[in-house]
Amino acid sequence: MKAKAIKQWCAGLACVAAMLPMRTVQADQTLVQASKDPEQWLMPGKDYGATRFSALDQIDARNVGNLQMAWVFSTGVLNGHESAPLVVGDTLYVVTPYPNILHAIDLTKPGGDLKWSYTPNPMAAAQGVACCDVVNRGAAYAEGRIFFNTLDNHTVAVDAKSGKEIWKTKLGEIDDGETMTMAPLVVKGKVLVGNSGGEMGVRGKLSALDAGSGKVVWTAYSTGPDKDVLIGDGFKAPYADGNEPDLGVTTWPENAWKTGGGAVWGWVTYDPELDLIFYGTSNPAPWNHAQRPGDNKWTASIFARDPDTGMAKWAYQWNPHDVYDHDGVNESLVLNLKIDGKQRQVLAHAARNGYMYVMDRTNGRIISYEPYVPVNAFTGVDMKTGRPIPNEAKVPEPGKVTENICPAAPGGKDWQPMAFSPRTQWLYVPHNNLCMDFKPVQTNYIRGTPFVGAEVAMTAGPGGHRGFFTAWDPVKNQKVWQIEEKFPVWSGALVTAGDVVFYGTLDRWFKAVDAKSGKELWRFRTGSGIIGQPITFSGPDGRQYVAVLAGVGGWAGAVVAGNLDTRVPYGALGFVGATTDLPQYTTEGGALYVFALPQSRTQSADAQAQDAQAEAESDARAGQQQ
Amino acid sequence: MKAKAIKQWCAGLACVAAMLPMRTVQADQTLVQASKDPEQWLMPGKDYGATRFSALDQIDARNVGNLQMAWVFSTGVLNGHESAPLVVGDTLYVVTPYPNILHAIDLTKPGGDLKWSYTPNPMAAAQGVACCDVVNRGAAYAEGRIFFNTLDNHTVAVDAKSGKEIWKTKLGEIDDGETMTMAPLVVKGKVLVGNSGGEMGVRGKLSALDAGSGKVVWTAYSTGPDKDVLIGDGFKAPYADGNEPDLGVTTWPENAWKTGGGAVWGWVTYDPELDLIFYGTSNPAPWNHAQRPGDNKWTASIFARDPDTGMAKWAYQWNPHDVYDHDGVNESLVLNLKIDGKQRQVLAHAARNGYMYVMDRTNGRIISYEPYVPVNAFTGVDMKTGRPIPNEAKVPEPGKVTENICPAAPGGKDWQPMAFSPRTQWLYVPHNNLCMDFKPVQTNYIRGTPFVGAEVAMTAGPGGHRGFFTAWDPVKNQKVWQIEEKFPVWSGALVTAGDVVFYGTLDRWFKAVDAKSGKELWRFRTGSGIIGQPITFSGPDGRQYVAVLAGVGGWAGAVVAGNLDTRVPYGALGFVGATTDLPQYTTEGGALYVFALPQSRTQSADAQAQDAQAEAESDARAGQQQ
Repeated sequence: MKAKAIKQWCAGLACVAAMLPMRTVQADQTLVQASKDPEQWLMPGKDYGATRFSALDQIDARNVGNLQMAWVFSTGVLNGHESAPLVVGDTLYVVTPYPNILHAIDLTKPGGDLKWSYTPNPMAAAQGVACCDVVNRGAAYAEGRIFFNTLDNHTVAVDAKSGKEIWKTKLGEIDDGETMTMAPLVVKGKVLVGNSGGEMGVRGKLSALDAGSGKVVWTAYSTGPDKDVLIGDGFKAPYADGNEPDLGVTTWPENAWKTGGGAVWGWVTYDPELDLIFYGTSNPAPWNHAQRPGDNKWTASIFARDPDTGMAKWAYQWNPHDVYDHDGVNESLVLNLKIDGKQRQVLAHAARNGYMYVMDRTNGRIISYEPYVPVNAFTGVDMKTGRPIPNEAKVPEPGKVTENICPAAPGGKDWQPMAFSPRTQWLYVPHNNLCMDFKPVQTNYIRGTPFVGAEVAMTAGPGGHRGFFTAWDPVKNQKVWQIEEKFPVWSGALVTAGDVVFYGTLDRWFKAVDAKSGKELWRFRTGSGIIGQPITFSGPDGRQYVAVLAGVGGWAGAVVAGNLDTRVPYGALGFVGATTDLPQYTTEGGALYVFALPQSRTQSADAQAQDAQAEAESDARAGQQQ
Repeated sequence: MKAKAIKQWCAGLACVAAMLPMRTVQADQTLVQASKDPEQWLMPGKDYGATRFSALDQIDARNVGNLQMAWVFSTGVLNGHESAPLVVGDTLYVVTPYPNILHAIDLTKPGGDLKWSYTPNPMAAAQGVACCDVVNRGAAYAEGRIFFNTLDNHTVAVDAKSGKEIWKTKLGEIDDGETMTMAPLVVKGKVLVGNSGGEMGVRGKLSALDAGSGKVVWTAYSTGPDKDVLIGDGFKAPYADGNEPDLGVTTWPENAWKTGGGAVWGWVTYDPELDLIFYGTSNPAPWNHAQRPGDNKWTASIFARDPDTGMAKWAYQWNPHDVYDHDGVNESLVLNLKIDGKQRQVLAHAARNGYMYVMDRTNGRIISYEPYVPVNAFTGVDMKTGRPIPNEAKVPEPGKVTENICPAAPGGKDWQPMAFSPRTQWLYVPHNNLCMDFKPVQTNYIRGTPFVGAEVAMTAGPGGHRGFFTAWDPVKNQKVWQIEEKFPVWSGALVTAGDVVFYGTLDRWFKAVDAKSGKELWRFRTGSGIIGQPITFSGPDGRQYVAVLAGVGGWAGAVVAGNLDTRVPYGALGFVGATTDLPQYTTEGGALYVFALPQSRTQSADAQAQDAQAEAESDARAGQQQ
């Protein structure tokens, strides 16, 4: 859909008014449909499949070089800004890192007037148990409400119009080391939210809250007996070793599953066709794997669940007995692809372990996997068992430093979400090129304190650069083109029908790249390093805008956000080792940057409206000729 | 001088190299000359006269509508950003509010690479004694060094190339309520710096430090005996009542001068012709005037001093026995104007009391004064005595609320510096339209705590808007044109040879206005309210840039920066009363915004250089024809 198409309806000031009814979201049952509206952006992943693809094409590969900054909005908060803005009707919403303020910005006003700000006033002590900066990955819209999580373990529902709190539900304890940083997904009237704290020995879980009342409908733990994990009759693991009962207990030393991690701090996706949600679980705790012999199910795994009951349909463990902090929380995109001549219902998942997986989402079986970064920690995946094959030389022994393990703890890719274009049929992957030296050390569980047991120092991977932005063909499961970046690319990706891909860098560049060729078309230097998720929307004026939060931080930017000592590579769980030079490139500072193509300043609003009218008529004529 | 003129020298990449020698500052004795170089910006007021006029004209009234944001740099600090960036050679410097970080940015790199950041690590407790946010008004360049003040009363000299600290001199005690927020002025190898704390009962002073060593050369107190005030043989007050000995003692109740304010937190200007510096002193302490009968000299005054010795040539008290917090610290621009057919050496001063003064800077006598805002606190100035004539109905009595006093405590204008264009011969004044209700209350001096004694609530002045941007003819001493602004205009002003005036607003707009007509030509919405001082410079690429710090705060923005309760109008010494709605318009967030005219993206750098060459040749031909 073209952004300008909506101009057909209107002229002059009447335009805005005429568009308003179109730019609202009516009821929950329409969310599947509403999320496809290219004018708006209702959830961080754009749609339930998390494609981050926009059908807008006013900004395209030919004109994006003229992109200008339209306006800026400072969030008033420092620390890492990982969230995606939302656009609902004529309002843009941003949620900040701790103290988790939700700002509503009126898009009908030039430069974006602040409508209201809501703050849940989270406990300051929550900052002390957040493993890697105090980030928030975004909010979600449904039923006239904005839902998001607070660092101190509350999910809140805020009236999208008034900014009034509707409900606030407590879901965890900072005294247990729990925090909440992930973006909810709202499915069929349920707000799906999980916890963070894999480095604090929490017990991971996903909860479904009733969107209307905030009451917990079901909770699915990642570890423990099947009744807690919501594994029952309808469950069938894709590989034989997943079908024993109570694996969440039996694959652990006694009671270790209670403090075993498997947090749910990443992405949830949904397939309305199969009526299944998909999400991953974090690393097992502690990082010192010698303290937890066994597979440590269901950490570093993916679950497919019924959104109504939470019951698992299938589960697959990306990394049984993870030894590298290779969480399984990365997003699994819901795609329908033609593979070997057959239309397949798949998930595409760039795993921390360095493999890009394409799997059958009906049953969890791997269709194909390929390394998308240099991998020496594994030699492949056993397609019969579904288990990665460890390179024994790289399995770290307690008290001993194992050098040059690739990929490092943050993996080939971490939380930073990729995009998929139905036009090119390619994935666009922001990711890392990091290796590490890793030494497991003995640690003891003390409630609410770090439970890691590892000394890690990361370094750049082969080539010396630390990041990649990669276009990837999921059908052939192979690289199409690739850009090398100085730092890990810790932002999300966005791809549009204009065949432009957007992403940001830790050294402050926001870039537009040709989706087909990978050629850089445009770049702008923002105030701080970018770890946010770019989005695009159509403004009330019919123009296409691109928006992204800058504000360095997160795990990759912790050296800046935490003002850490660059002489100690072990800082930030080893990430300082790979980012000692980052403070030379960026300071902190959270701000929303909104870009658009230039608008002629000599034209009056009326003249523009007339132009739009003429354009619309021309479009209409063109339509008749087709 | 045109920015493009420098392109004559160079083509392609050689251009940058060729320009480098031109873009350095050689020695201190050239600072008078160097400050006139339009390519650079070496001190906040641009030149010693503080005209804030730039001879650059690449951006002009016809093309400024096309101005685009070139890049942004987040300072990493919240709170009010009042400082002016400096441009020395190819480096841009910004100093932040507490913790007073100095960032150096490489202008030869696209988007402005951070070269280094220097932090003086001021004591956190200094924040507790800063009256009105923790601002810093800027740095100054001389002799290869950047000089600035820290909130905890140090002046630092930093090597402009390496960022290494050269010296750091302690000048005051936070335990006495002292802080330092003003921008130094460097004159003849001396760094002139003063203290803040008129609301804490400090004893005001200006010190001259040796630029080489940081050693104090002289200190001139604002109150106390003549030997402390550096009043001696060469002193002659412009009006009779200023010539008694030791007025800094005799115009006070016993010992009250020791805690009587007269802080020096505003602007210092310099006239090389007369070899005199000019600066003002703050309100007397406490605000409750009944506790300090007498003139309270030399608070709310202006001094003319010999920069070598500090000895006063003359002094004039704007507001004897100030009863409204009408400090005298506003800048006094050094101008040579033709008045009544005679060339006069004058100072132009928009006083807090609402009068625009044009005075003879050789002797301090008033040439003319006119109200530039609604004034009801005074009925005029007695031209024989030089004393403002109080409107007795508006003199507040202790324990009683006097309503609707105009102008309010922050005056018709506060610190926000005005500009002067030699082309239009007009002043461009960012200022306030504020009145107040004022109730003096008894207070006691307790060292290092607020010493105010007043309950104040400000309101909008006549018309209901709270700010003005005014073009003012200092010869006729009358208004030329005026723009009404919703909020007090708390930013500085900039005027250029392109006949464009720039200023910023608390509600996030950065505006360009036609210097002749006052017509708004362009506006951009930055991330946070603007209280910084805009500057312009010529980049290494020969393009003219305009730069300004956004980041709301200061006294006017304290309601946001201090997260104050908007239900209590007395907050921020009464400023909350006039800014209760400001949090609806802006959040905090310090960032430098750099603007330029669009550069065609289709041209290669070489093609641009060729264009520049052709342009230069054409300019040369045009020159021959003149």
